[in-house]
Amino acid sequence: MPAESAREHDGFSLALEAGVAVITFNRPEKLNSLSRQTVLDLCAALDSIEANGQAQAVVFTGTGRAFSAGADLSGGVDTFRDRRDAAPGAKAVDSRDFGGILALRLFASTLPLVAAVNGDAVGLGVTMTLPMDVRIAADTARFGFVFARRGIVPEACSTWFLPRVVGVNRALEWTMSGRLVPAEEALAAGLLREVVPPDDVVSTALDHARSLVEASAPVSVAATRQMMWHGLTQSHPMEAHRVESDLVRSLGAGPDAIEGISAFIEKRAPRFPTPTAEGLRPFRRWWTRPDF
Amino acid sequence: MPAESAREHDGFSLALEAGVAVITFNRPEKLNSLSRQTVLDLCAALDSIEANGQAQAVVFTGTGRAFSAGADLSGGVDTFRDRRDAAPGAKAVDSRDFGGILALRLFASTLPLVAAVNGDAVGLGVTMTLPMDVRIAADTARFGFVFARRGIVPEACSTWFLPRVVGVNRALEWTMSGRLVPAEEALAAGLLREVVPPDDVVSTALDHARSLVEASAPVSVAATRQMMWHGLTQSHPMEAHRVESDLVRSLGAGPDAIEGISAFIEKRAPRFPTPTAEGLRPFRRWWTRPDF
Amino acid sequence: MPAESAREHDGFSLALEAGVAVITFNRPEKLNSLSRQTVLDLCAALDSIEANGQAQAVVFTGTGRAFSAGADLSGGVDTFRDRRDAAPGAKAVDSRDFGGILALRLFASTLPLVAAVNGDAVGLGVTMTLPMDVRIAADTARFGFVFARRGIVPEACSTWFLPRVVGVNRALEWTMSGRLVPAEEALAAGLLREVVPPDDVVSTALDHARSLVEASAPVSVAATRQMMWHGLTQSHPMEAHRVESDLVRSLGAGPDAIEGISAFIEKRAPRFPTPTAEGLRPFRRWWTRPDF
Repeated sequence: MPAESAREHDGFSLALEAGVAVITFNRPEKLNSLSRQTVLDLCAALDSIEANGQAQAVVFTGTGRAFSAGADLSGGVDTFRDRRDAAPGAKAVDSRDFGGILALRLFASTLPLVAAVNGDAVGLGVTMTLPMDVRIAADTARFGFVFARRGIVPEACSTWFLPRVVGVNRALEWTMSGRLVPAEEALAAGLLREVVPPDDVVSTALDHARSLVEASAPVSVAATRQMMWHGLTQSHPMEAHRVESDLVRSLGAGPDAIEGISAFIEKRAPRFPTPTAEGLRPFRRWWTRPDF
Repeated sequence: MPAESAREHDGFSLALEAGVAVITFNRPEKLNSLSRQTVLDLCAALDSIEANGQAQAVVFTGTGRAFSAGADLSGGVDTFRDRRDAAPGAKAVDSRDFGGILALRLFASTLPLVAAVNGDAVGLGVTMTLPMDVRIAADTARFGFVFARRGIVPEACSTWFLPRVVGVNRALEWTMSGRLVPAEEALAAGLLREVVPPDDVVSTALDHARSLVEASAPVSVAATRQMMWHGLTQSHPMEAHRVESDLVRSLGAGPDAIEGISAFIEKRAPRFPTPTAEGLRPFRRWWTRPDF
Repeated sequence: MPAESAREHDGFSLALEAGVAVITFNRPEKLNSLSRQTVLDLCAALDSIEANGQAQAVVFTGTGRAFSAGADLSGGVDTFRDRRDAAPGAKAVDSRDFGGILALRLFASTLPLVAAVNGDAVGLGVTMTLPMDVRIAADTARFGFVFARRGIVPEACSTWFLPRVVGVNRALEWTMSGRLVPAEEALAAGLLREVVPPDDVVSTALDHARSLVEASAPVSVAATRQMMWHGLTQSHPMEAHRVESDLVRSLGAGPDAIEGISAFIEKRAPRFPTPTAEGLRPFRRWWTRPDF
């Protein structure tokens, strides 16, 4: 993934803009709806962005007037049918909601994730943004948790994320009614960090993405992201204390802390030496994922 | 429960208004305070509303100037005494806080619940609204978590609900001080969805109740309500993923999804065929209640 | 701890002002930074304040222009080094983040805790306020979750507390970026209860502290504080129901409830007879702390 280059995938493109990976949904003629395969490709793209090491954050946006209309309904009434019924030998992953597969991959990201919601975000189009860290939206965007209007239920782990992001009452209202929520209401409810004119969405999201990483040690950003999201999975603060004690002690004796404290005392910008993957390796055991 | 009819219970009446059950506390001379028996009758009324199938949502309100003054203190200092002391052979339910029995019944509701808080809500009068989905209040209403001023502690599972609804700091402040909280402060803190003049409380609550259900599949509404509230009980998003995968897959192949997607594609209003109780049955195992 | 007297400790002083203990960090020349020993002394001071019984609440503030700059960095790059490396026979407590030791002690407090943030609160200086009940700040104060800029990670159980206090998205933004957050932003995000001019911080905090306790039974305040914070540790509302049923039943038959209800009926101020430690003893089993 060379700088400023872009790769095309089926349903999205991937580019690198000054240290930030930008994933752009690019099927505007289908309102950037997402097939199961596109979602699996997104997961693979995140794997390669993390392995590649060139990007410090990831921004998601869409081309055209929508951010994403969610799961591709072009299959009509077969869209949500159980694939196991159709294919008896299908793998277990086929019985899993593919929105949830994406949500859990985003949850596990070692890079900060920023949604640049350029237009309407509906169904999986909005639930996929819930495991992201910051959401910026166009003032014209609307948010539709429309599942109940389609005879199904919320997915992409949104029944875990949404009540924690906007509170359980707003989460219930939006998902039971299925109505389209204007950007201003979503901002007031805490779903969004900032609402801007449509033309400013991507640049504002890039600014936010850079502000998250520009002065911080990459390993610290990655570990902090894991610790904070997993803090929500812990029942008692003692669980956080165990993790924090391990990381503060280990990282506190490491080269990034020496550089961070030295730079602070010397009043200069730090240059942190440790690559994310290497620095995070000793701590990954704290963030294991339960089996499906 | 024929449409537009009303039934009288001891402490409240029950009416059906165009698909919405309205429970009205009707002991204004006692500020709609609630006895243990009234609370058990409320639970039974919810059972019959759900079994009856005529109502799509439930609104709670009160007659007179108060919504409810909470547990009936007319027993004086005997109000909170352990009934087991008085009656050695009493059933286990008698050692349970009866506010909590009501709260857990509301938590398990398959219908959306809307509080129309017409006036002061004190003690159980306010804690009983916490498991509801939407709270509308008169601008004159005040909210009193007065337990510490009476020498006791919060009940009705409010030590679980309140910090999740308004945040732990506001919950601590309100319950330790026991002061009466004005409607505007309760609105800003997220306890309320909307504050209106007293005469508009019930009609506004009815509007909210209808907006939750009018375009959605009844089974989807019921399942979404269970999933979202239980999302707060799950430690890891993987737990939500398991539930969602089951329901999206099963419901996605069912008649409501076929109707929902067909109606969406044909740009017409859907007519969902599945009754709530029947449609919800295969999934109830996801929402079992722990023993007391 | 006689009324109006003050005791000096290494790093802070302790005074009693009309029933409220005031802990004042008093190393302004070091921006009230905190050594490991000062933190352990703070824990011991809280023990003695609770045992003493003269204070009904505790206020924390600082002298000079900062509230606290956090962990003392005067040790330079050795600040976060593992003390076990230096001292092979060191006790287990030495491998624990000392911010977390303080946070867990504050979490277990039987008295309400109010932060009077007179100036900048950075690192442990801000994370130590998260287990407090109310935070008041000077309009000039800034809040710095600067850990990632120093090459380490958040501590003091802040990965458990912060996402619950300000929401996970704001928590992620502040801790990944490490930037200094102005008081107004912290107020809007829910970190603060009120922002006032610097000269009014302590008096405002004292007013809040007194409002939490002045009309409430001391045992009720202590139990409510435990129940509400531990409500966040409970997965299902049934867990709260068990605790509440025990306390409502027991306290409801006790002298404080008799006094509280009598005073309410007689429209007079209550005089609650039960000392906190004695009244809380039968219920402490509900709030056991997991081992490290």
